[in-house]
Amino acid sequence: MLNILYSFALALVLALFGTPLFVRLLVKKSFGQFIRQDGPTAHYIKRGTPTMGGVVIITAALVAYFGADLILGHPPRLAGLLVLFLFVGMGTVGFIDDFIKISRQRSLGLRPVWKFVGQGAVGVTFALLAINFPNRDGWTPASFKVSFLRDTSIDLAFAGRTLGTVLFVIWANFLITAWTNAVNLTDGLDGLATGASAMVFMAYVIVALWGISNLCDSASATHCYVMSDPLDVAMVAAAITGACLGFLWWNVHPAAIFMGDTGALALGGAYAGLSIVTRTEVLGAIIGGLFVVIAASDIIQIGWFKISGGKRVFKMAPLHHHFELSGWGEVTIVIRFWLIAALFAAVGLGLFYAEWVVAR
Amino acid sequence: MLNILYSFALALVLALFGTPLFVRLLVKKSFGQFIRQDGPTAHYIKRGTPTMGGVVIITAALVAYFGADLILGHPPRLAGLLVLFLFVGMGTVGFIDDFIKISRQRSLGLRPVWKFVGQGAVGVTFALLAINFPNRDGWTPASFKVSFLRDTSIDLAFAGRTLGTVLFVIWANFLITAWTNAVNLTDGLDGLATGASAMVFMAYVIVALWGISNLCDSASATHCYVMSDPLDVAMVAAAITGACLGFLWWNVHPAAIFMGDTGALALGGAYAGLSIVTRTEVLGAIIGGLFVVIAASDIIQIGWFKISGGKRVFKMAPLHHHFELSGWGEVTIVIRFWLIAALFAAVGLGLFYAEWVVAR
Repeated sequence: MLNILYSFALALVLALFGTPLFVRLLVKKSFGQFIRQDGPTAHYIKRGTPTMGGVVIITAALVAYFGADLILGHPPRLAGLLVLFLFVGMGTVGFIDDFIKISRQRSLGLRPVWKFVGQGAVGVTFALLAINFPNRDGWTPASFKVSFLRDTSIDLAFAGRTLGTVLFVIWANFLITAWTNAVNLTDGLDGLATGASAMVFMAYVIVALWGISNLCDSASATHCYVMSDPLDVAMVAAAITGACLGFLWWNVHPAAIFMGDTGALALGGAYAGLSIVTRTEVLGAIIGGLFVVIAASDIIQIGWFKISGGKRVFKMAPLHHHFELSGWGEVTIVIRFWLIAALFAAVGLGLFYAEWVVAR
Repeated sequence: MLNILYSFALALVLALFGTPLFVRLLVKKSFGQFIRQDGPTAHYIKRGTPTMGGVVIITAALVAYFGADLILGHPPRLAGLLVLFLFVGMGTVGFIDDFIKISRQRSLGLRPVWKFVGQGAVGVTFALLAINFPNRDGWTPASFKVSFLRDTSIDLAFAGRTLGTVLFVIWANFLITAWTNAVNLTDGLDGLATGASAMVFMAYVIVALWGISNLCDSASATHCYVMSDPLDVAMVAAAITGACLGFLWWNVHPAAIFMGDTGALALGGAYAGLSIVTRTEVLGAIIGGLFVVIAASDIIQIGWFKISGGKRVFKMAPLHHHFELSGWGEVTIVIRFWLIAALFAAVGLGLFYAEWVVAR
């Protein structure tokens, strides 16, 4: 418990005090966000706000996790490290993207093919490491089974380990790509993605905590969880939650800084990683339902536009821009979306707990 | 568990759909808020926004609690009913206050002496009922012992039951007055008090849940909680949380409606009641730390003004107006204060849980 608390508190403090320093640095170097040219025109005034705030989120969470480990003399373990690897790896791809946007002053950034290669390299490495190295309990961080509230009977290794590995790499990378894109699409209004992320990562602290309390071990009963090193996983989730909350202080309207692709890809990657190592891959889509809805709105919009030959479902996608053009204030949308995010997280946690109660 | 869920969900839905209907009704009758004349001048534009939104919060929570009881065939019990009595009783005093303000178009409302009499009547009745009627386990909803993380050894009945009753009535009314005033002072910016209330009431759902899981009974171990009917208490807290969240949807900036004294007094009363019946009277001031800080800022301002002969500590009290005059946007203050409220609630819950772990 103390580990989780330290991890959370350290990250919170670091992000809270680190963000203004980072803003000052960026302003000094005159790095500002280049706002997408196809967004609502009201957003043009945001041009010039520093971005790449994800750098602070990543640094704060990393220092907090390892700091808490050091303070308490707790060696880091594989499952936690792998989630951090996804977090930092995706964040690095995002950082390169942001950096190109800013230094070349163009809204597009990293070329899609390189983005794909970068994300793929990180994602494949994660998947291979996560499925091959068991911890002392004999459990690998990830499993070949597709998981909902726990591992289901859908086994990707149904036709042997080799095909299983290939299928798992594809499945893991699908999750990673889906989540990084979903968080990135959500990151369009001041504080929206940051606040919603704080909620979903906090939910994962609870999932991992529940795993710790009811972990399968030699003495355990028939009903228990198979999770690799859930304490480390909870610490990582707590560190990211704290970092998001500290960053949010400065990211609320009027935002002094944006998280940028650096932050969105890092958070999306970490989220995918958490859902994989806690064996709640599908449940993750309910806990993080807000991101899913926003991503879906974008897919629906583009899909229907193509199918119908130019018709639109929403005034603008992703969803929050639709409401902006419908006359809702930016802040009204953000807070209402947070409410929805909180309800999704609560429903997800409720399902997770209900399965426990029913199956026991 | 299902009771709590039903109670929460029903209240949420009722408040979410009930609030716009109530707004329409008030606008039709041209009832608008009369903004305090000594507040920041920027608030003058808020004149005309309907108030008394507390009516929706109270109605939604009441219908939800009794509705959930009916659906599940669960008879209501004393501890829950007493908290609801404080909630509705204080809300009624607030409603009369609001109604006078609006119908007479003056900012002051109910005369202080009548407010005192009304609140006193409700508070004394609550205290006497709470200390005199044991449930089937032999426990009264409240106890003569002052409680922090549980009942402490400070016994108000140290010199007999009669003096104990007098002291308890005073103590309970102190808590009630403190909380109603604190919530009322906090209710100065769009969504601030509503959002912070949702958090503290949610924290009390968790406190009561923990009480349910570890209640002292015949089979229980040495370490357990004495709480009268914690399931009902959790249902009440969940209903109020849901009602706050549903109302918040409309109460966010730009607010379509304010909760008014109706809401602030009701929520403050319910909060005091929850802290008394869950035996966490002092802990309540940590969980609801934001309200305490805001109320303290007002006391410090007024006190120092009198002592120093006219000097001010803050640019304006309560605290949120200080930051408004310091140039923070209304929404920035609200969200940052919510962050602080969430941290206070987390620290409070952490202490509650830590005592459990340590003492066990």
